Amino acid sequence: MPDPRFYAVAGPFTLAEIAQVVEAELTAGADPERRVSDVAPLSHATPEHLSFLVNSKYIEAFAACSAGACIAPAKLADRAPAEVAVLTSENPYKSFALAAQLFYPVPVPEPGMHPAAVIHPTADLGPECRVEAGAVIDAGVRIGARCLIGANVTIGPAVEIGDDTRVGAGTSLSHCLIGARVSIFPGVRIGQEGFGFAIDRGGHVKIPQLGRVLIEDDVEIGANTTIDRGSGPDTVIAQGCRIDNLVQIAHNVRVGKGSVIAAQSAVAGSARVGEFVQIAGQVGVADHRTVGDGVRLAGQTGVTRDIEPGGTYGGTPAVPIRQWHRQSAQLARLARGKAAPE
Amino acid sequence: MPDPRFYAVAGPFTLAEIAQVVEAELTAGADPERRVSDVAPLSHATPEHLSFLVNSKYIEAFAACSAGACIAPAKLADRAPAEVAVLTSENPYKSFALAAQLFYPVPVPEPGMHPAAVIHPTADLGPECRVEAGAVIDAGVRIGARCLIGANVTIGPAVEIGDDTRVGAGTSLSHCLIGARVSIFPGVRIGQEGFGFAIDRGGHVKIPQLGRVLIEDDVEIGANTTIDRGSGPDTVIAQGCRIDNLVQIAHNVRVGKGSVIAAQSAVAGSARVGEFVQIAGQVGVADHRTVGDGVRLAGQTGVTRDIEPGGTYGGTPAVPIRQWHRQSAQLARLARGKAAPE
Amino acid sequence: MPDPRFYAVAGPFTLAEIAQVVEAELTAGADPERRVSDVAPLSHATPEHLSFLVNSKYIEAFAACSAGACIAPAKLADRAPAEVAVLTSENPYKSFALAAQLFYPVPVPEPGMHPAAVIHPTADLGPECRVEAGAVIDAGVRIGARCLIGANVTIGPAVEIGDDTRVGAGTSLSHCLIGARVSIFPGVRIGQEGFGFAIDRGGHVKIPQLGRVLIEDDVEIGANTTIDRGSGPDTVIAQGCRIDNLVQIAHNVRVGKGSVIAAQSAVAGSARVGEFVQIAGQVGVADHRTVGDGVRLAGQTGVTRDIEPGGTYGGTPAVPIRQWHRQSAQLARLARGKAAPE
Repeated sequence: MPDPRFYAVAGPFTLAEIAQVVEAELTAGADPERRVSDVAPLSHATPEHLSFLVNSKYIEAFAACSAGACIAPAKLADRAPAEVAVLTSENPYKSFALAAQLFYPVPVPEPGMHPAAVIHPTADLGPECRVEAGAVIDAGVRIGARCLIGANVTIGPAVEIGDDTRVGAGTSLSHCLIGARVSIFPGVRIGQEGFGFAIDRGGHVKIPQLGRVLIEDDVEIGANTTIDRGSGPDTVIAQGCRIDNLVQIAHNVRVGKGSVIAAQSAVAGSARVGEFVQIAGQVGVADHRTVGDGVRLAGQTGVTRDIEPGGTYGGTPAVPIRQWHRQSAQLARLARGKAAPE
Repeated sequence: MPDPRFYAVAGPFTLAEIAQVVEAELTAGADPERRVSDVAPLSHATPEHLSFLVNSKYIEAFAACSAGACIAPAKLADRAPAEVAVLTSENPYKSFALAAQLFYPVPVPEPGMHPAAVIHPTADLGPECRVEAGAVIDAGVRIGARCLIGANVTIGPAVEIGDDTRVGAGTSLSHCLIGARVSIFPGVRIGQEGFGFAIDRGGHVKIPQLGRVLIEDDVEIGANTTIDRGSGPDTVIAQGCRIDNLVQIAHNVRVGKGSVIAAQSAVAGSARVGEFVQIAGQVGVADHRTVGDGVRLAGQTGVTRDIEPGGTYGGTPAVPIRQWHRQSAQLARLARGKAAPE
Repeated sequence: MPDPRFYAVAGPFTLAEIAQVVEAELTAGADPERRVSDVAPLSHATPEHLSFLVNSKYIEAFAACSAGACIAPAKLADRAPAEVAVLTSENPYKSFALAAQLFYPVPVPEPGMHPAAVIHPTADLGPECRVEAGAVIDAGVRIGARCLIGANVTIGPAVEIGDDTRVGAGTSLSHCLIGARVSIFPGVRIGQEGFGFAIDRGGHVKIPQLGRVLIEDDVEIGANTTIDRGSGPDTVIAQGCRIDNLVQIAHNVRVGKGSVIAAQSAVAGSARVGEFVQIAGQVGVADHRTVGDGVRLAGQTGVTRDIEPGGTYGGTPAVPIRQWHRQSAQLARLARGKAAPE
């Protein structure tokens, strides 16, 4: 059970309420007025709990569980113990996410400007914002309604932020326009100059970086991630992207809608990442390269050439994932002193 | 000699005092009442100094040194010049560390709450803490005795910190319980939400992250490192771990006692790192994988499968280090156009 | 055109003024008194604009452009449309950089100490400095003239900073001496203890880190980068280096004059990087290794042995770049099941 010092549980909720919120159907015979008071994994769930089966490898735990109710795919529903009410879902993982959100809604920040925040008189904040101690908000900043600006955040001149956006502690923003419902985690750096200069033995010459960072709606940006502003064009993170911790997004990069980038990956200058791309951890995309829509990149992949839409890639230089597995196998074979390929 | 603007030297100390602290024995004939006033490397040491031989490749420098005294392994003690007092140690590097700590003890922070710190009235701080300017400590926080909370640190509601822990400038902590004698360097991010959501074309759905981060006693966490809280289970860094800068520890990870993780490495969600594991820089451990006790991973290794206890590994995917060296050699051979394996 | 909320344009300037500043020559027939009012890429430039041809692959756009004037290499000047004034340069990219700096000079910060900055009475700041809200400057700090200390910056005791240096928001500095005209981006960590301890089953023993970080003049350090202080020797970043975001520089490292290190690269303890070295992203240099002057390292390279001056390298372990390309090609060939080398 979540530590009550940190998390407050809502509910209890009836199965009928839950079914509606989580986009699931209650199987015949279950009592829609039955109430559960929390979520729990299969191994820990009691009759008070809603649990979930998202992966068929946990089918035994499901068949033996003591939960009051359980979200599961329809085809596995009949494996539940008789006393467990089953909520069938086409996307049990999503349904679980929605259920967990129902029981543990993100707390609404109590509005108010802490007296130890420093807000420039020309900054314009919407209703019901919360600005915590030590936050510094500069001239001409515009912030929407119900935003949370964490402690020790720094927001530079003329930055704009949409409604319901949250900015974590110690983050700094400049030269950027941020959308609505964006989650920016602690220590993020957005809008500093890109890494651009003319190499010169007499002293490298800085190229002024005159673009912005545009963060569209519903984006999440992980802790200590860095997103440089464009050199002339903008750096753009499109709607719904999820970026993990310690990621580097260089100047002029465009990341398409719904893409996911795991920790410590980097997209170099002017590269393009398509829509709904999935990038695992520690991946590098070289400058000016394009990664097509829907591509998946395995951990530590190095993209040195453009990649067509679709497909999964691994290795440095990146190759189709099956080829990468064969390469690894052949290499192991060579190292054992066997004649190379069959 | 360390710059006196930044470091104050203690002492002088007698060789008898030093021998006791550094777990070494003074060789016969040396005067236990002789005093030295500082530590110095072999090449710079004068009769005022204590020096050290930790690696036999410096044996010539040792044999020619002018130090007043020197820590060395017993088997090399007779190589010292006659006028150098030798302190023999089974672990000269550890003895050197202890000697350096003797001459350069970590300064005790002067207790006090800076008037520009913002401490919630319900926060409970132990005796002799120092809280620097701009630190923001939220409701219900509990901090032990003699802690140092650096400037511009942010500590979220209900966080607990043990005795003698130090939190570097600009760090942010939330949803975590921190042990005693922990060193957290500047810019660290602990306790933010893990990277968890159900992928959905209509918009990825956040999975509430309802666990905590537990940092046990005597852990060190490097600058700008990020440690996400668990999704339901906790993220745990066990007693005595040493984590370097810019490391990523994802949700639900457990790092066992005494493990060491060098800079820019990442341990992905729900992975397990055993006890006394040594992970070099830029290593990635994939999600849900286990790295057994005592394993060593070379720089840039990519762990994609579980690794048994013991052994040294390299490459992506990780293979035993000798195999990795053979693979590299065979690959070089192939590139030279030679018939592959011998 | 740059967003006027974030950027103010200077000028207009005559072509004669521009030619002098950008180290270019106005071709015969062009009117030196003609004025242009902004810079723009070839595709967007109108007769009001100065544009630039830095890469011959844009020659068609150059030949068709509508710019008022254009910087180009002398050998391509005759390809410009008749109505475009051409400024010929031996280094058009550098000339463009200088032109962009002319039109978009870095704004001079308005001097002043924000009342919400916390400056120790013994700190000594030169004339015309700007210290923003939430900055914390400790005892004995010395800062030169015209420096910008950003919001929520923390500067530890006795740190020294030269003239015209800028320190970005949320950065922390300790145990370091910083030169003149240095640009430190937000979230940078300089001077914390290096990662040094004697491994011991009973508890690793910290080795006091008694050196400093020396940052020479004209260095740029990217966001969230970490530079540890030396253990006894200093960590040194020599004059004119450019370091990108999220880079790790360990204790005792020396990076030579004019070297460039891209994002997420790491230089491990006591390694030496020569002068004018170019390191791409996600590269690792192992501890105690030397990378010679003028070496170039491709993205994700892992340097495990010393590298002689000059030459380009790739792969892990690093090999000459041509060998790396051959290795990759042979590996792909093996994976296709072909007999290995030709």
